[in-house]
Amino acid sequence: MVSALAAAGVDTCFVNPGTSELHFMAALGRNGQLRSVPCLTESVATGAADGYGRTAGKPAAVLLHCGPGLANGLANLHNARRAGTPVIVLVGDHATYHQPLDPPLATDTMALAAPMAKFVRRSVDPARLAADVEEAVAASIAPPSGVAVLVVPSDLSWSAASAHIAGSGRPARAVAPPPGRLEVAARALMRGNAAILLGGEALGERCVTLASRLASHTGARLLASAQVRRIARGRGRPAVPRLAYDVDEAALMLAGVETVLLFGTGSPVAFFALPGRRQTPLPEGVTILTPADPGQSCELALEALVERLGCPPVQEPGNPHLAPPPDGPLDSQKVAQVLSAVLPRDAIVIDEGVSLGRTFFNATANAAPHDWLQLTGGAIGSGIPMATGAAIAAPGRSIVSLQADGSGLYTLQGLWTQARERLRVTTLLLSNRSYAILLGEAHRLGLATEGPLADACRLDDPPAGWLQLANGFGVPASRAGTSAELAALLEASFAREGPCLIEAAFT
Amino acid sequence: MVSALAAAGVDTCFVNPGTSELHFMAALGRNGQLRSVPCLTESVATGAADGYGRTAGKPAAVLLHCGPGLANGLANLHNARRAGTPVIVLVGDHATYHQPLDPPLATDTMALAAPMAKFVRRSVDPARLAADVEEAVAASIAPPSGVAVLVVPSDLSWSAASAHIAGSGRPARAVAPPPGRLEVAARALMRGNAAILLGGEALGERCVTLASRLASHTGARLLASAQVRRIARGRGRPAVPRLAYDVDEAALMLAGVETVLLFGTGSPVAFFALPGRRQTPLPEGVTILTPADPGQSCELALEALVERLGCPPVQEPGNPHLAPPPDGPLDSQKVAQVLSAVLPRDAIVIDEGVSLGRTFFNATANAAPHDWLQLTGGAIGSGIPMATGAAIAAPGRSIVSLQADGSGLYTLQGLWTQARERLRVTTLLLSNRSYAILLGEAHRLGLATEGPLADACRLDDPPAGWLQLANGFGVPASRAGTSAELAALLEASFAREGPCLIEAAFT
Repeated sequence: MVSALAAAGVDTCFVNPGTSELHFMAALGRNGQLRSVPCLTESVATGAADGYGRTAGKPAAVLLHCGPGLANGLANLHNARRAGTPVIVLVGDHATYHQPLDPPLATDTMALAAPMAKFVRRSVDPARLAADVEEAVAASIAPPSGVAVLVVPSDLSWSAASAHIAGSGRPARAVAPPPGRLEVAARALMRGNAAILLGGEALGERCVTLASRLASHTGARLLASAQVRRIARGRGRPAVPRLAYDVDEAALMLAGVETVLLFGTGSPVAFFALPGRRQTPLPEGVTILTPADPGQSCELALEALVERLGCPPVQEPGNPHLAPPPDGPLDSQKVAQVLSAVLPRDAIVIDEGVSLGRTFFNATANAAPHDWLQLTGGAIGSGIPMATGAAIAAPGRSIVSLQADGSGLYTLQGLWTQARERLRVTTLLLSNRSYAILLGEAHRLGLATEGPLADACRLDDPPAGWLQLANGFGVPASRAGTSAELAALLEASFAREGPCLIEAAFT
Repeated sequence: MVSALAAAGVDTCFVNPGTSELHFMAALGRNGQLRSVPCLTESVATGAADGYGRTAGKPAAVLLHCGPGLANGLANLHNARRAGTPVIVLVGDHATYHQPLDPPLATDTMALAAPMAKFVRRSVDPARLAADVEEAVAASIAPPSGVAVLVVPSDLSWSAASAHIAGSGRPARAVAPPPGRLEVAARALMRGNAAILLGGEALGERCVTLASRLASHTGARLLASAQVRRIARGRGRPAVPRLAYDVDEAALMLAGVETVLLFGTGSPVAFFALPGRRQTPLPEGVTILTPADPGQSCELALEALVERLGCPPVQEPGNPHLAPPPDGPLDSQKVAQVLSAVLPRDAIVIDEGVSLGRTFFNATANAAPHDWLQLTGGAIGSGIPMATGAAIAAPGRSIVSLQADGSGLYTLQGLWTQARERLRVTTLLLSNRSYAILLGEAHRLGLATEGPLADACRLDDPPAGWLQLANGFGVPASRAGTSAELAALLEASFAREGPCLIEAAFT
């Protein structure tokens, strides 16, 4: 299994093993080609694999223990699935001949994996184990990429396996979309009143550049999906506004549009239905076009359209580097301004800012060139793990983890892996001591925000002591109360080798 | 829904809500009959419901958010399922008319629930919502009790519901086992060389007393299952040794036995199969008898057998209160001796001591009378949440949470709820800074314990700073290095109102 992973180009395995995975762990040591990264919980391991896969553009492996171990990692696999991130999940399970005795940890592992994965298999034959691994890797990277789960009964781990490694599992060739679809899209763009909505792979640097040429030449609105897998952005790159989380705000961004061209994303939809409220931000009677189906290449589609319409290159404005804001107590806007001013070139920003951080994306469009990765599936607790995985995938780059406090508490255990691996992650903890997003939704629903509802949204009794929690996991931490303090702490953090946490204290 | 829960006797709801549960939260406030207990993660909420259900003997409700929220809580529902704990899980999900649009948080919630639950239903009709709740409660408590999951689309929460509450959901009457089975069991006991193995409900105080009379009168060995849901024990109560975790040790405890009578548990089986090792601790050719099927009353079965065989009451020896051990550096044995000496009457011990705490059960048989609850399903991370739920169910009693460090890190967020609710929980943290159970298994498997395998078992780089972590969640904490320090800190903790954590530092 380990040799097959290495032959398929997998070089990293996030591990949270139990008894049934010990042979695999020993083989990792003997083989020596994969970096093994211990994680304290399964959700850290799967979230790290999501961050790794989005950053490296290839899958990491995750090693989990039996059905309940897989269950603990499912929420971040859900996020990976929504991002279309390639991930290989290996679940050690009971020996084939022991499972019928229904030992305490036994459960229906296959049923648990199915909702999150595009490929689920239970290995039954040691002679086919290498092939099973190769097929899992190939499935995870075949467009549209996603999560592949291989359940491995423990007796297969200690049986003699086939030494034959086919060496498959390499990226499939890009599939071109059908010319007829492209012609329909080209005519819609020429008619005007169109919007180009980019998501998934279409937020890659080359796709964004092509889409910007299309938009600039035809007058179409260029937008990013509300769920950003990863986008290359910042000064000198096209500014792509993100569709708002709030469905009414998003509807304003699409007002007057007659055609929406989707690349790498489905049709936009409200995160939740609310009584009497719209379910999508789309204008009445809008035409939805999907020039490239899932599995077909968005890049080839955009290239063909640029050529068909003769769109010249766009010179992006070289906006000046913004100065930090004047000193003063922190609010959401000041934090975004400070971040814009001090973000190092080639940084990777991980965005689980939720309500407090919602304005940060558009506010940092002119920061130094950087990549931006965001919570995609709405299952909170992805930020700290994703930052961990991104740092493993990009060792030379600074990682900035924009983390809301309520969601950060789900997977704070990831800080330990950051300390253990000496990762260059700066966690910028946005501390409002509440689940503010829930209070906001309750207001929109007209519900009385008192009693148990209000209590369930409060994180101030006791307040989470983030500095102590970070220190408890070996991560140095400090608190910024003003914009000048925040700028100084951020800049110092980018000069460090290991991780740190900065709590932005709002008044 | 809230009225139906209250009418069925449910008085506690552990909550980790999202947008789709806000109407339920508002209704909790209006109704006022259920205690709402906020939890920072879903695994804390489900584990707390397990601890509550085992302690109170009736179900608590758990409120979770959509499929990924349920996924986060599944591991502790697995433990509850293995314990046979009644639990009502309410999962708010997307509106019926919104789900087909596949919004970001949508997944197959029903498929995720199925492996852990004896009852799974998706409500579709607001007029039937109260009845759905009543049926879920009834299913969870009907013998054999277990987990019931009700998925509630959010539009049902804001639709007009039927006000009719049938008030069902009361405990079902105990079903007597068939007389023929009992006669076979009685004859086996009379033949001798029998063992009586108690698990689940058969570890209740009355069942243990009856089983002790049977064993004492017939010479049968009396044993508890390796997975203890809850047992009443201590001075003046029958001492019931627990079947060893290690299958070879367990086999020694059953050596020479010709018949095993199972009450409330399945046939014992090794936790894991290992190459060339036995799969069960049972002697070759043993006869397994199950006097009461699942759903039939173990208590009625034991009563009938005691009467049939004319077993007189047993006078349990009133062993003297043991003095604490002499002062000195801590080891596993000294911690158990200190605990035995200082445990308050009517304490509840939550045992997730894993490898370090494995000897504690038998070593505390002569402590003051207490209840003992243990990890049942092998999904680690149950201890801190179970202690939280037990404290909610038994406000006047002292809770001692025996917690190994590796498993404690899975769900340390539960400490926050202990602080928030001012619960009388003393977490006794057994700190060996490793996943020692894995290293032990690796040795038994003959695997080289170095490289990635050894690294994945180490918790010392960086060491988890448990005092800081506890303080970060608002729980006072201290460290004991000697047996005298530990005894003093434990005794002080039992006099406090709120929670605390004591780290037993091993040398």
